Order: sequence, then structure tokens, then C-alpha cells
Amino acid sequence: MVLGYRPALKAGDMAPPSGESPLGNRLDPHLSRYAKRTHGMTASEIRSLFAVASRPEVVSLAGGMPNIAALSMETVSSTVANMLATRGQVALQYGSGNGDQHLREQICEMVGLQGIAPHPDDVIVTVGSQMALDLITRIFCDPGDVIIAEAPSYVGALGVFRAYQVEVEHVAMDEHGLNPEALRECLKTLAAQGKTPKFVYTIPTFHNPAGLSQPQDRRMEILQICQSAGVLIIEDDPYGLLGFDGHIPQAIRSHDSDGVIYLGSFSKTFAAGIRVGWAVAPHGVREKLTLAAESAVLCPPAFSQLTISTYLDTQPWMDQIKIFREVYRERRDATLEALTQYMPEGTTWTHPTGGFYVWVTLPEGMDGTAMLPRAVTARVAYVPGTAFYINGDGRQSIRLSYSFPEPDRIREGVRRLGGVINEELKLMHTFGTLGVARPSVSSQGSTPGPDVV
Amino acid sequence: MVLGYRPALKAGDMAPPSGESPLGNRLDPHLSRYAKRTHGMTASEIRSLFAVASRPEVVSLAGGMPNIAALSMETVSSTVANMLATRGQVALQYGSGNGDQHLREQICEMVGLQGIAPHPDDVIVTVGSQMALDLITRIFCDPGDVIIAEAPSYVGALGVFRAYQVEVEHVAMDEHGLNPEALRECLKTLAAQGKTPKFVYTIPTFHNPAGLSQPQDRRMEILQICQSAGVLIIEDDPYGLLGFDGHIPQAIRSHDSDGVIYLGSFSKTFAAGIRVGWAVAPHGVREKLTLAAESAVLCPPAFSQLTISTYLDTQPWMDQIKIFREVYRERRDATLEALTQYMPEGTTWTHPTGGFYVWVTLPEGMDGTAMLPRAVTARVAYVPGTAFYINGDGRQSIRLSYSFPEPDRIREGVRRLGGVINEELKLMHTFGTLGVARPSVSSQGSTPGPDVV
Repeated sequence: MVLGYRPALKAGDMAPPSGESPLGNRLDPHLSRYAKRTHGMTASEIRSLFAVASRPEVVSLAGGMPNIAALSMETVSSTVANMLATRGQVALQYGSGNGDQHLREQICEMVGLQGIAPHPDDVIVTVGSQMALDLITRIFCDPGDVIIAEAPSYVGALGVFRAYQVEVEHVAMDEHGLNPEALRECLKTLAAQGKTPKFVYTIPTFHNPAGLSQPQDRRMEILQICQSAGVLIIEDDPYGLLGFDGHIPQAIRSHDSDGVIYLGSFSKTFAAGIRVGWAVAPHGVREKLTLAAESAVLCPPAFSQLTISTYLDTQPWMDQIKIFREVYRERRDATLEALTQYMPEGTTWTHPTGGFYVWVTLPEGMDGTAMLPRAVTARVAYVPGTAFYINGDGRQSIRLSYSFPEPDRIREGVRRLGGVINEELKLMHTFGTLGVARPSVSSQGSTPGPDVV
Repeated sequence: MVLGYRPALKAGDMAPPSGESPLGNRLDPHLSRYAKRTHGMTASEIRSLFAVASRPEVVSLAGGMPNIAALSMETVSSTVANMLATRGQVALQYGSGNGDQHLREQICEMVGLQGIAPHPDDVIVTVGSQMALDLITRIFCDPGDVIIAEAPSYVGALGVFRAYQVEVEHVAMDEHGLNPEALRECLKTLAAQGKTPKFVYTIPTFHNPAGLSQPQDRRMEILQICQSAGVLIIEDDPYGLLGFDGHIPQAIRSHDSDGVIYLGSFSKTFAAGIRVGWAVAPHGVREKLTLAAESAVLCPPAFSQLTISTYLDTQPWMDQIKIFREVYRERRDATLEALTQYMPEGTTWTHPTGGFYVWVTLPEGMDGTAMLPRAVTARVAYVPGTAFYINGDGRQSIRLSYSFPEPDRIREGVRRLGGVINEELKLMHTFGTLGVARPSVSSQGSTPGPDVV
């Protein structure tokens, strides 16, 4: 885990005194000058825990970092050398706001695997798909506007919605992802209040954090509900090519090019550090997105874009994706086996068929947020479930990410976690739920930090 | 000039029918869904002209692109190879939201040349300094808030202010940059209206577009005015190291670390395509900026950051800056000589001592915006003065950028421009000012496109 922006913390700082955020509460002479939207921008208190969790002795099952070691550094190096020799003057110069033309053509080919057939002009390259989320919210949402997101949902998206003062209505998931009945109910309730949501935000494939996928008929049902209600869908799909059985689910966007904005990323199929993602958007929307992108960063880095473009042109990138799949499948297996071995009765978890995450539901009465300081003390870290809800729900759940550590480390981490949960259970049985109460650590805050994505 | 995002245009499209923006007016089924801030996001009509201006037969004095050819591609290539060999796993991974720790230390050393002595924690690395402008406006400005900017001002900053629905009050410049008397007047007028500006945005060194620099006593006077009024200064300084005589002006930030946010960039001292800039900000502000940055892009590209970091560690970067200075000095000289040779009486221009730009004031009664289609037809392009004002002023001025073309091409471009101005003058003398009226091409719009920065 790469960490930088945090005041140095000692072990004793792990459970900071209530109200004393390591980022928020010092004297700031500019406090009266900030915009309204800035008042909600406070760092989540779990950041201080992750500063400790980044120590080598802690097994981190927290951060959703891709396993870059599975990519050959020689390949990257020769790709960059090749790129600079052939397109160096373009790579080092300003480019166009919506991204390199050739890369946008290559992205069209790539999303073809998910059944999407856009025109290269429909593609906007962004600084990671996080920037696409920011721009979409920027162009669609006024403060107080409502959007719908499944619960739990991607913590980085919730951070964006919060930053734009958007109200998030959560819709429950079942074992097949976003639940259509709950979506219908939510739309009905909003309509009764005279509210039309600006969009439905969903991750249909290898969901972060839930580790679930929507079957095709579920996707069609969700699309039809949104079409009937005249509501746009934001389909976030960073893990779509990382199915362990090699099957590539067809995107919702493949069935409707006007009503769905599709987001993709090279962070998990090549490297996160180049920060290249994209949106596939309807005509009018992509023009607004491009204008917003130019205002935000002028243009995405040509240096990164041309590197991935050259890589796609000259390297067997699908073979590399197969290597990544195998790396993650092996780690998913280690995680599930260890969970079976070490989790006490009453603990349940999802069985992901792709992606990075397992969603663990703790025994009745337990609180994953309150347990985190104890887990970090026992040298294992995770992200508490509350981080993935806008409203404080999710206390009984935690997210385990298996993408980065070696399988043996994962097993050791899950073993330590099992020990912590058993300890909590013992306390709870002896003293009742009050027995596990302790100074609460809130995971609420405008951004999670890049280490828990 | 690298162009991409524009509908294909034929030569006959150069003066689009009034109201028919090539980006704005097609049928958009999502039109009713956009946020209020998005309604002002329309593409400037001059974009279509620049699509034509990018043809090789046109001498473009429009885009402020760095002269990347002056940087050795072998050096860049070996730097990247070295970087991947030593820090490859970090370069390809997510990083921290405020940027790489070592790079922030190097930036501290670099800004030391301008008299600034920050702590590395005060530095936030951004995707070009454009992103720093976006984040600063995001955290400080509610819709309807007022900021002050010298006139003319950087077109990309005006685009950001417009995107956040900020009211810009222009303050006049004189031959030494932002005029203190005018600043005092503006603050007084605003105070009388009960308005406190959120900040004063200024480019004190080698100003874009005016080509002027504030002497040290002017900087001190502006700082004192802002300190007295309790108004923050945003000091934008992408060209500070590019003085032709090697002199490096001391930054306003060197005199006040609490009241000034300083912005810098590697776009002009290394390469624009890596998109690495930074802000040096007071404690509370940099924490808000980091949270906003994480929400916007998670983290800046480690790949770019570690490339520039390795370059600074291993290459004689100050020698390269001296090469850049020489390249731009030679082009500045060619521009000024050609202006003296080809401009008709009544035309005046600034004499930049660094940076990329000359600001040309046309003879009385002429309109640089209306003249642009004729200039492009005569195979020379510039940016009309109106682009650098929020309020439609600047019609009598144009910006010439000499950074990119070869000196001979610059001379030829200025020669062509002289011909166009003479033609306009002839028309004007024959028919009066009405003689030069034609379908107006507005340069107003939320963003200028990356090619006119």
C-alpha cells in the first residue's frame, strides 16, 4: 500500500480521541472562506488506522490494489521506449480534452468484448474512471439532487456524490446484485415525493464491495425499469474482464446506447498508476463531459495514454488479462478456504466469480467498524462495511480485498481475523453487546483515501 | 497542435452561422437533466476556427504549447527506463492523493529558487496546475461568489471560474502588471456592495496573455493590499523559471505563506504531456485540497510523477531550463522584429522578458475577434483578446504565442498577419468601422480547448 498524506502516527494513536480527526480539527484561518460543499469534506477517521495498517507486519485486506507484480516490467519498459521512439513528441505535449484518437478507437474494440459498439467519438478518456464519476456528477447534479445507488456501493463514488452535495438513495441488493423490486419501490417512493433521480449508479459485474454479479436477465430487468422511469444508468465496470472462468458478462450499455453511460478503466487490466479510464456516453452528454474535463485538467496525460495505446497495439494484452485472472482466482480461493477454516459460526460471505472482493457478514450483534482498531492491533486490516453506505448502515459487514497479498499472507490474515472475531464473540457472550462497545471510530467522511478503493 | 475532439470541418465552415455552435446545438435527450452549472458549459465558437488553424499550411501563433523538441527524447527514454527499473512497482500502482513524497520534496527545492520555503506536506501534486485551479475554486467558491482577476487573464482560469458559476471582477493592468490602484478601487466597490472576494487570482511573472511581469515592489504592494483586506491570493506561476536573462523573480508566496496559494507546473520546464503541476498551500487549505483531489481523481498518476522525479534526480534539469530559455528567447526576438517590420502604424505590443506570449493591441476601431476568420483564411492564427476577458472586452487585442513554431515560421506568420491588418485598415478607411463588421464569432464559452492555453 502506498501511503503518504497523513500525519505520522504512533501505535497509541490507533483509536484517536472522539472528534479529533488527524486531518480535520487544527486551527485554519481560512475556515470562514470555504464553499458550502467544502464543509462536508472531512477525512474519514479510518484513515489514521490505515496509516498503521500500512506497516509490513500488518496483513492488509483493505486496499483494492491491483497485483502489478503480475505484469512484466520488461514489457512495460520496452513498450514505453517504443512509444517514445515513435510518438514521443505527441506523448510529451498537450493533447485533446477527450483523449487520444487512436486510444479511443482501441477502447471501442476492447468494450466490444462486453457487447458495446460505440463510435470513437463517444469515448472520453479520463484520469481513471474516478474522474469520469466526478465529471458525470458535476454535469448532472445540483446540490440536493437525488441519485440511486445499490447498497453497499463503491466508496469512491459515494465520496463524489457527497462532494457535490447529492442525496443518495440506497437500494438493497440480493444474491444477484441490485434488487429490481427494491428499485421499483425506491422510484415509486421518490415519485410520490415529487423527486426524479438524476441517475441510477450500479456496478453490475464483480461488484465492489459485494463481490456479486448481475445475471443477464437481471440486467435487462433493471434497464427496463430505468427506461420506463426515464432515468439514466451509470454502469461502472472496472472488473468486467476479470471473470475467473473467462466468461465476459455483456454490459447493460450493450442494450441501450442512449440511456446508459458506461465507465471502464485500465487500472485493473494494465496498471493503476497510469490513471487511464474512460466513459462511453451518448452524444450530447459526451460533449458536456469533454468541456467539463477541459476545465478540470485541460487534457488527460498523453504520456500515459500513448503508453497504454502502444501496449495494446504491440503486446498480447488478452494473455496478460488471463494471467491477472489466474492471480486473482488463486487469491479468491485462498480467501474462501481460509474463511471456511477460521470464521466462527454465524459468519457468512459472498463467493465472487471475478474481481477483487469478498463481503463478509459478521455474527448477529457484531460491529465491524468498532472492531477495526482491535483487528489492526492483531495485525490484520479490512474496510468496515459502513464505508460503503451513505447512511451509517453496514456495521455488521466488512470488506476483504484479496487482490494484492500473496495467498499465504491472505490465509494468515484471515486466521488473525478469525481470532479477533472469536474474541469479540466471547466478550459479547460474557457481557452482552455492551461488552464490545468502545470509543466509536466513524468511517464516514468525504473521501476514503486512495488506499481503500 | 494536437487536435482531436471536434466535428470534422470543411474550409467553408470557418464562420459558422450565428448560434450554430459545432458542439452545442444538436438534439440532446438529456438536456433537461443537466445541473444548473452545466447550462453555461458551451464550446467557444473559435474552436471551429482552430480546427482549421491546425492544418500544416497555417502558421499558428494561437496555442501556448511548449517546445518539446528542445528536450532530448533519449534523455526522457533513459529516465523512464531507469525509473521503471528502480521504482516500477510504485509507478504502476495507486499512490497517495497529494502526490509522491519524494517528488514533493524535490518541488520544495525547486520553488526555493523563487524564494519559497515550504514543508513537503504543504505541496499537493495535481494533474497539471489546471487541476489545482479547479480544486481551489471547488473548495472556496459557491455559485455567485466573487473573485478578482487581472484583465486580461488566463483563459483556462476564466473557464474554471465560469464552470463554478463564480463572478469575476476584472482589475486593469498597466505596464507592470496588475494595477494596485485599480485593485484598491475594486475592493472598495465590492465592499460598498457588501461583497468580499474569495481570492485575487494573479499571474505575476511572464503573464499569460499579456507578456508582462510585476516588479518586486509591485508584488509587495499587491500583497499588502490583499493582507489589509483579508483576501487570499492565488499566485499562478507556470513560466517563472523561463526569464530570458536568467533572472528568477521572487514569488509573492515568498513573503507570505498563510495568505498565498502558489501554483507551479512541469509543463513548461519538462513536458506538458505528463500533466504534473502542484499547489503550495497553507495547512488547512492543503488538507481540503487533498480531500477534493481524492474525490476528483483518487491520486495523480504515479507513472508521470516518478518519471519527473527521476529526471530531477538524475539529469541536469537546470541546464535543460537554460536550453528552453534560449529557444523561447530566440522566438521572442523573431516575433518582436517581425512585428516592428510588418505591423502598420497604430499597432502596439508588449515586450516580454520571459514566457510564451506577446499581447498586441490593434489600431483604433479594429476588432481582433471579427478579424480571426480572415486571418485563418490568410493562413495565420492567433487567439482573439476577448478570450481573456470574462465580459466581452478585449476586442482590440490579440495574443500571439511564439513558443512552438520555428523562428522563420513566426516571421512568416507575422508577415501574413500584417497583411490581414492592413487589409482591414483599408476597408475601415474606405467604409468606416462598419466596413469590417461581419457575422460575429464569439470567443466566449466555458472552455477554450487545450489548444489555446
